[in-house]
Amino acid sequence: MNPEQLSLKQLAGLVQGEAVGNADLRLKGLASLEHAQPEHIAFVNADKYLDQANQSQAGALIVTAELKAHLNSAQQNFIVVANPYLAFAILTHVFEKKNTKSGIEATAQIHPSAMIADSAYIGHYVVIGEHCVVGEHTVIHAHATLDDDVEVGSDCLIESHVTLMGGCKLGDRVRIHANTVIGSEGFGFAPYQGKWNRIAQLGSVRIANDVRIGSNCSVDRGAMDDTILEEGVIIDNLVQIAHNVHIGAHSALAANIAIAGSTTIGKNCIIGGASAVSGHLKIADNVTLTGMSMVTNNISEAGKYSSGTALFENQKWKRTVVRMRQLADVPLTQLVKRLDHMQAQIESLESTFKLRK
Amino acid sequence: MNPEQLSLKQLAGLVQGEAVGNADLRLKGLASLEHAQPEHIAFVNADKYLDQANQSQAGALIVTAELKAHLNSAQQNFIVVANPYLAFAILTHVFEKKNTKSGIEATAQIHPSAMIADSAYIGHYVVIGEHCVVGEHTVIHAHATLDDDVEVGSDCLIESHVTLMGGCKLGDRVRIHANTVIGSEGFGFAPYQGKWNRIAQLGSVRIANDVRIGSNCSVDRGAMDDTILEEGVIIDNLVQIAHNVHIGAHSALAANIAIAGSTTIGKNCIIGGASAVSGHLKIADNVTLTGMSMVTNNISEAGKYSSGTALFENQKWKRTVVRMRQLADVPLTQLVKRLDHMQAQIESLESTFKLRK
Amino acid sequence: MNPEQLSLKQLAGLVQGEAVGNADLRLKGLASLEHAQPEHIAFVNADKYLDQANQSQAGALIVTAELKAHLNSAQQNFIVVANPYLAFAILTHVFEKKNTKSGIEATAQIHPSAMIADSAYIGHYVVIGEHCVVGEHTVIHAHATLDDDVEVGSDCLIESHVTLMGGCKLGDRVRIHANTVIGSEGFGFAPYQGKWNRIAQLGSVRIANDVRIGSNCSVDRGAMDDTILEEGVIIDNLVQIAHNVHIGAHSALAANIAIAGSTTIGKNCIIGGASAVSGHLKIADNVTLTGMSMVTNNISEAGKYSSGTALFENQKWKRTVVRMRQLADVPLTQLVKRLDHMQAQIESLESTFKLRK
Repeated sequence: MNPEQLSLKQLAGLVQGEAVGNADLRLKGLASLEHAQPEHIAFVNADKYLDQANQSQAGALIVTAELKAHLNSAQQNFIVVANPYLAFAILTHVFEKKNTKSGIEATAQIHPSAMIADSAYIGHYVVIGEHCVVGEHTVIHAHATLDDDVEVGSDCLIESHVTLMGGCKLGDRVRIHANTVIGSEGFGFAPYQGKWNRIAQLGSVRIANDVRIGSNCSVDRGAMDDTILEEGVIIDNLVQIAHNVHIGAHSALAANIAIAGSTTIGKNCIIGGASAVSGHLKIADNVTLTGMSMVTNNISEAGKYSSGTALFENQKWKRTVVRMRQLADVPLTQLVKRLDHMQAQIESLESTFKLRK
Repeated sequence: MNPEQLSLKQLAGLVQGEAVGNADLRLKGLASLEHAQPEHIAFVNADKYLDQANQSQAGALIVTAELKAHLNSAQQNFIVVANPYLAFAILTHVFEKKNTKSGIEATAQIHPSAMIADSAYIGHYVVIGEHCVVGEHTVIHAHATLDDDVEVGSDCLIESHVTLMGGCKLGDRVRIHANTVIGSEGFGFAPYQGKWNRIAQLGSVRIANDVRIGSNCSVDRGAMDDTILEEGVIIDNLVQIAHNVHIGAHSALAANIAIAGSTTIGKNCIIGGASAVSGHLKIADNVTLTGMSMVTNNISEAGKYSSGTALFENQKWKRTVVRMRQLADVPLTQLVKRLDHMQAQIESLESTFKLRK
Repeated sequence: MNPEQLSLKQLAGLVQGEAVGNADLRLKGLASLEHAQPEHIAFVNADKYLDQANQSQAGALIVTAELKAHLNSAQQNFIVVANPYLAFAILTHVFEKKNTKSGIEATAQIHPSAMIADSAYIGHYVVIGEHCVVGEHTVIHAHATLDDDVEVGSDCLIESHVTLMGGCKLGDRVRIHANTVIGSEGFGFAPYQGKWNRIAQLGSVRIANDVRIGSNCSVDRGAMDDTILEEGVIIDNLVQIAHNVHIGAHSALAANIAIAGSTTIGKNCIIGGASAVSGHLKIADNVTLTGMSMVTNNISEAGKYSSGTALFENQKWKRTVVRMRQLADVPLTQLVKRLDHMQAQIESLESTFKLRK
């Protein structure tokens, strides 16, 4: 399917939407409302974008029926759907540049005991160790390393400079972005007489189907048991997943997060960027943490949680920090009670005084 | 120019300074005041270093005329300039070990459609894809990967294990340090029925002239439009730049920062290490954020901003956290007003009372 | 020594413990109490695990004499030691899969001037520059890059995609995990007329014996002097060590930490994950920082320190942030004094009033 040949009608068909306007209009790509040209299709997802949509030069708009009612229909072409953002997500795959290569580049080093599916593509200088398995249609970019006993399912993407080791096992449709490390040794040391005695990490990493891990992430192998990412987990860049962490299905972790060892994150959680979760904690299902959250205790209730002071003008912040230092020694709730009590005393004095007049 | 042959006079000439003392003194390198030996030149940048400068064994000192007046001139050699730190910065380039290689190592894999300038150096095992362009005098270290359609300008440095992909375009004199990823896929997913639907990222990354990006950074490609770093932006290590972020000219980002998607940072901003900026925000020009700042709203005024509680002795911190938990239910400003009001009541009672005596 | 042949007695001997029960029992590996099978040995480290230990299917348990007294001895086999966690750490090395390769893979590119010990192993596509040195029994995984003048001691481990540059020098038994960068250029720029003038970094990195650095870390080379990690330092993943940082012996740094330039960390410090330490500071020996600590001043006393607000339910957090914004203008300690003073006034009024009755 050549995306350059697609008509409004065909695109509408791909997202089970209705084509309104010139159904034969050829569209070459997706663009934002702001930058779209007549050969592009853009999407409108909320009332607040209606003005921008009316002014957009996009050849066609993906909208709901309700949003369409507020647009200058006469001049426009539409794909009408229930969920424009989802339709847009689906159409990005149509216009995405696909890998068309298969086979094994001559420069790849593959151990004879490794099993590589015929439809897989193995890029230049990829190194694959003993007993590895690579599934059908999986694409492995240049310089990736699969150490011994690593298994990668079918339809996976492993980008450049990824290191898979520790016998990690990846399901199907797993995407590991560039320079990420899966299965390196967990940070386990027994302190003894002022020194750190390394604990060799004998566990591995298990990654279920449809997991997505961004670039420059570290997912360590377990100490004895495995580190586990359940199906559909999505992880952004520069994220640390320590040994024996367990992340529930369809949870999403934004960039620069650190999850310390043996912590369990529930299903369908959303963790904001730059958050840090201490070790050996349990976070319930459906927990949302806003950005830069600091979690030092279990979270047993679904809900939205936050931490931090938010941002201050620097001089005011300095004064606030001074006050926060005083706060430990100020009995806040007692203060309010004392105030209530004193007010009662004053009022009593005042009324008695008036009576005596 | 062999740095070992340089005299005080020649070095002074390179920084448009005045050589004072033995103009023919040969100097072999730069060193700190503390560790300098007679063959070294060191710099003095402020009054507080005068004692250290007087005791230094450095063969020569880079100073201002004003600082020189406070030093034991008789025993020393000087380069007198208006800005010693800038002069030092310039001289570091004289003593730096330069790349002397050019050409393409035999092990590099370069697609026939790629255009590599004759004066460029391409290291061992570098992989360069279709339609890539590499400019004059650019140096690409071993194992770097340039995926299809990547363009790198002239006089650039691309260190080992860098991954350039997503058709990113780099200007001239751009420096990308080891293991950094530019142009990997942005973190875009449409949630639908409890699952995350991947949005293929169709945009790219544009990096202007004189940009510097540290090691282990991630700069994602845009969803539809491009992620943009304007000229002269400098970025430290382990920094996350999400899709469609736009960073203004000459802004500086310290290590471990995360900038979330579609946020615009102004020109000449300075962002302290370990800060995190939420998505879809606008930060004005000339904003300085101190380290570990948490930004969740637009910043429309130039100035210096901060967040966080600063550091506490642990036991005191625990008490402070208890108080912070009480704070939500303590009407602080109202408290002060009540106090003022009660004081007035008391004083009124006292004075009435005295009158009645 | 084939670990599959080891008896309880032999394992006890390796940790100077006493075998109790079936001394000839063959054990194949270590496991957690929860997942252990009869062929596994597990450890019990505290009273709170006694129930789990009694229910475990482990073939043998590593315990103290005291803990053993509380277990169903009749049914179990034991190794009795003073420190079960240390014994466990030692035994992980017995069951760890060892590198058995030596020699240089044919695809490695090694400069003729480099000196590689005969017992070292150099993996596929490793690139080693001029004048490098690699010691006995050191293992270098595929795709690692050693730029010119790098020296690695004996019994070291350098994992895949590690970049060693800037003439860094590593001692013996140093372990550098995958995709870490040592010796890339420090973030040094002299601001002048709105631009950043790069300061070429002329120093290097010195790493002492028994240092361990996790995956995706960045350790920059010094500006003039060296960045230094003393012996026995252990560092988790995604950690930033800026130029001219000095870390004292046996200090431990958890994941996602950033240490800014020229800061000195003492010996035997423990720094919690996601902490950030500003530049040019001195942290004393034996300082512990809990996770996400923000350090902006010197710490001259050993002890435990913390920062941050801890976690709030989101709606309560929003109210707390409003209060924190008011805090700067609320004279907290003065408030308490005023309250005390007013109470005294009220009491004085009350008592005078009573006297007059």
